Amino acid sequence: MKEGSAFLNENAARIAQSMVADAERLRVNVSTGSLGERRIDAGARALGSIEAGLRMAEAAMGGLGTVSLVMNATAEKYPLNVQVRSSQPVIACLAAQYAGWNLSIDDYFAMGSGPVRMLVCVEPLFETLTYRENAKRTAVILEAATPPPEAVVEKVSKAADIVPENLTFIYAPTQSLAGGVQIVSRALEVVLHKANDLKFPLDNIVDGVATAPVPAPHPDFLAAMGRTNDAIIYGGTAQLFVRGSSDDARDLAEKMPSSASRDYGRPFAEVFEHFKGDFYAIDPLLFSPAEIAITAIETGETFRAGRRDLAMLERCLG
Amino acid sequence: MKEGSAFLNENAARIAQSMVADAERLRVNVSTGSLGERRIDAGARALGSIEAGLRMAEAAMGGLGTVSLVMNATAEKYPLNVQVRSSQPVIACLAAQYAGWNLSIDDYFAMGSGPVRMLVCVEPLFETLTYRENAKRTAVILEAATPPPEAVVEKVSKAADIVPENLTFIYAPTQSLAGGVQIVSRALEVVLHKANDLKFPLDNIVDGVATAPVPAPHPDFLAAMGRTNDAIIYGGTAQLFVRGSSDDARDLAEKMPSSASRDYGRPFAEVFEHFKGDFYAIDPLLFSPAEIAITAIETGETFRAGRRDLAMLERCLG
Amino acid sequence: MKEGSAFLNENAARIAQSMVADAERLRVNVSTGSLGERRIDAGARALGSIEAGLRMAEAAMGGLGTVSLVMNATAEKYPLNVQVRSSQPVIACLAAQYAGWNLSIDDYFAMGSGPVRMLVCVEPLFETLTYRENAKRTAVILEAATPPPEAVVEKVSKAADIVPENLTFIYAPTQSLAGGVQIVSRALEVVLHKANDLKFPLDNIVDGVATAPVPAPHPDFLAAMGRTNDAIIYGGTAQLFVRGSSDDARDLAEKMPSSASRDYGRPFAEVFEHFKGDFYAIDPLLFSPAEIAITAIETGETFRAGRRDLAMLERCLG
Repeated sequence: MKEGSAFLNENAARIAQSMVADAERLRVNVSTGSLGERRIDAGARALGSIEAGLRMAEAAMGGLGTVSLVMNATAEKYPLNVQVRSSQPVIACLAAQYAGWNLSIDDYFAMGSGPVRMLVCVEPLFETLTYRENAKRTAVILEAATPPPEAVVEKVSKAADIVPENLTFIYAPTQSLAGGVQIVSRALEVVLHKANDLKFPLDNIVDGVATAPVPAPHPDFLAAMGRTNDAIIYGGTAQLFVRGSSDDARDLAEKMPSSASRDYGRPFAEVFEHFKGDFYAIDPLLFSPAEIAITAIETGETFRAGRRDLAMLERCLG
Repeated sequence: MKEGSAFLNENAARIAQSMVADAERLRVNVSTGSLGERRIDAGARALGSIEAGLRMAEAAMGGLGTVSLVMNATAEKYPLNVQVRSSQPVIACLAAQYAGWNLSIDDYFAMGSGPVRMLVCVEPLFETLTYRENAKRTAVILEAATPPPEAVVEKVSKAADIVPENLTFIYAPTQSLAGGVQIVSRALEVVLHKANDLKFPLDNIVDGVATAPVPAPHPDFLAAMGRTNDAIIYGGTAQLFVRGSSDDARDLAEKMPSSASRDYGRPFAEVFEHFKGDFYAIDPLLFSPAEIAITAIETGETFRAGRRDLAMLERCLG
Repeated sequence: MKEGSAFLNENAARIAQSMVADAERLRVNVSTGSLGERRIDAGARALGSIEAGLRMAEAAMGGLGTVSLVMNATAEKYPLNVQVRSSQPVIACLAAQYAGWNLSIDDYFAMGSGPVRMLVCVEPLFETLTYRENAKRTAVILEAATPPPEAVVEKVSKAADIVPENLTFIYAPTQSLAGGVQIVSRALEVVLHKANDLKFPLDNIVDGVATAPVPAPHPDFLAAMGRTNDAIIYGGTAQLFVRGSSDDARDLAEKMPSSASRDYGRPFAEVFEHFKGDFYAIDPLLFSPAEIAITAIETGETFRAGRRDLAMLERCLG
């Protein structure tokens, strides 16, 4: 993970390669696009799997995060959770995993995720994030039901300065098993993103871990998207280890839980419909876990806020 | 995992090889039988270990399952559980792990487990399961207190068309630490097996995860066997992700928990004695976890049924 | 793990090497000391990480233990726990991990941890422990805020008969993230150590697993040391699998929990101050987990004793 190396992008490419090698096992379809790019369908025409979703998440984090499935034998209703952990959460989650690169062209809509984003740096976020890489190959993760059209592949290739033959696009729609797992694996990323929105200095974020229940996939896009958000908003938990003062840590903890948001309190799909599908009209502070602990490692204090809402989970996840 | 490849059998052989390399560490004894077959004693004369049991379980699943030990820091009485997960549960559990190949000859009694079974296909189950392999080596997992006699080795060698030198027999009795762990690691397999008994189409089973408490080994065979069954029947939990209608998923969920069985409600050893040791007189539907969730991925509904019975666990596991 | 091999020491050296390779990622500083020894600062001037602490713990156990981080999604206040598991707990914990080699010289205070101790055998413990290794390189783990001075490096080199160039010293103070994680990863080791103090025959200890909450680091040494101890004393759980009679197992279980100690019942820092910082005046039986299960594998009985004390945890860990 040296500045200017290809560490995260190579990791993403390597994990993509493992998915190709294990294609039958993961039930993913591998094909070559018209520009020579490799495409891994992990949940569109392909059936996919939970395992494919876990690998997508680790590829998206550039290999800097550990994503595992934990079945809590004693939990009543939502025992199956993803657990995401990173000792480099800012780079793993924000510079790589966050689906922040708008790759939409014409009627193709997709937000690009993965360490490719730090090769391109078109997002304002990269004014704050300074870690950069140079890479000759990588993988791009897409929450999408179709492979990227030529124009998108060209855009990525040009912006990242990587020939299409060395690009792998791993895609799965929100409604699929792999898509759902990959998306709720953002349980830690949303914490980082909200911390940045709240102007908490990212350099002070040292370590982190988060969990969220694995929601059942839903055939309807809106319902599926609602569930992946609700899983985090009403069922997610996270702990962050930060430098700086206790006051700053307390302040971050108080503002972090989803319950601190104006739009908290009903299923995400309802919020989305209320704002007539205008994603950007929704309070961005809604996107965070239900329960949070912020540990100020320089003062030794831990601040907790929020609470998982099992009744809402039941209403939202079924 | 290509049809006609040696994927699962090679994985089993590879895991067996790792047990040979780590023999001291795992406290297993490695020897060569009279026909040149390799034998790994993981709990008979050898003391064995939990780690040996976990590897036996992963070998039995042909490397297509992840078996881990989870200690729940907050659970009251049975915090130590195995967690079994597979994104190819039908092949991993039914075509490989299920101890369904009768290898008993004369007074040697053993049911063969492992992907070797799909090379042989003598069980009716393989009329339903279509995945096949061709392999030059493999490992056979046995719940047994002695190594297989010559006649059994010959039978396996002939049926699988693998020379004895390329066969490894890993065995541990029910009473041993490794044996117990290997057996409760069937917590997901029993779900698959019962689904098949209930005529649920196996092709519709996509993904799965299960847990069961690790029972204390018991020196008496009947008591030990009782406990491994009780651990699953009264303490097991599982979630399955299936295709098909909500009605089929609901129906499967309602019938799946052990409590839906006629013979549910007393320690397994008592049931076994009640039927005078006639295993096949016991209701086959008893062999399933206490708690189940079936998620219909095409409709988005999850159906839950059953309940862990901690009082019975206490009575059965001590 | 053959007697006379270099298994654990090679594992420790290999894990240290992985920390060097991943230095940026783990936020550790690597340097070379005046005698050519390698030094890994995992939490003194370096910021370090949880991941660095986990690797320190696995190096200390000579690769014979699995140390993982488990976030319990349903736990109220201390969801983040380390889980330590070993199927060779005596060798992993006592012959390697226990910080029992006094490396203090002049005003440098440090207790050496790691499999290097079995090369040296200056501790009385090695009259009981018979497993020995011959190694050409290894790693020494230190709970310390500064790298070892020349005299200490010379002492280790001479005692272990390893040239300084082949020694790696991994150090992190109690107040650091990595230090804290490495120290609470002794949750299983304290059980082994107390069993030995209680004259339980170590040869009868077969397998074990333990958990303890990850305490927030604290900038004050005394407070930080107090917390790592309190995490185990009031929040630790463990299960041991032993040979021998039920009576011996019951007896061990009854004496094992921290609550069986004279000094149980107030924060460790208070106990430490009460004895004016004389570590050896503290009841050694205090150093053990709150909750214990001892399973007698030859009789099938499990004995449980003790109870996590959440109110004390809250008072101690914040």
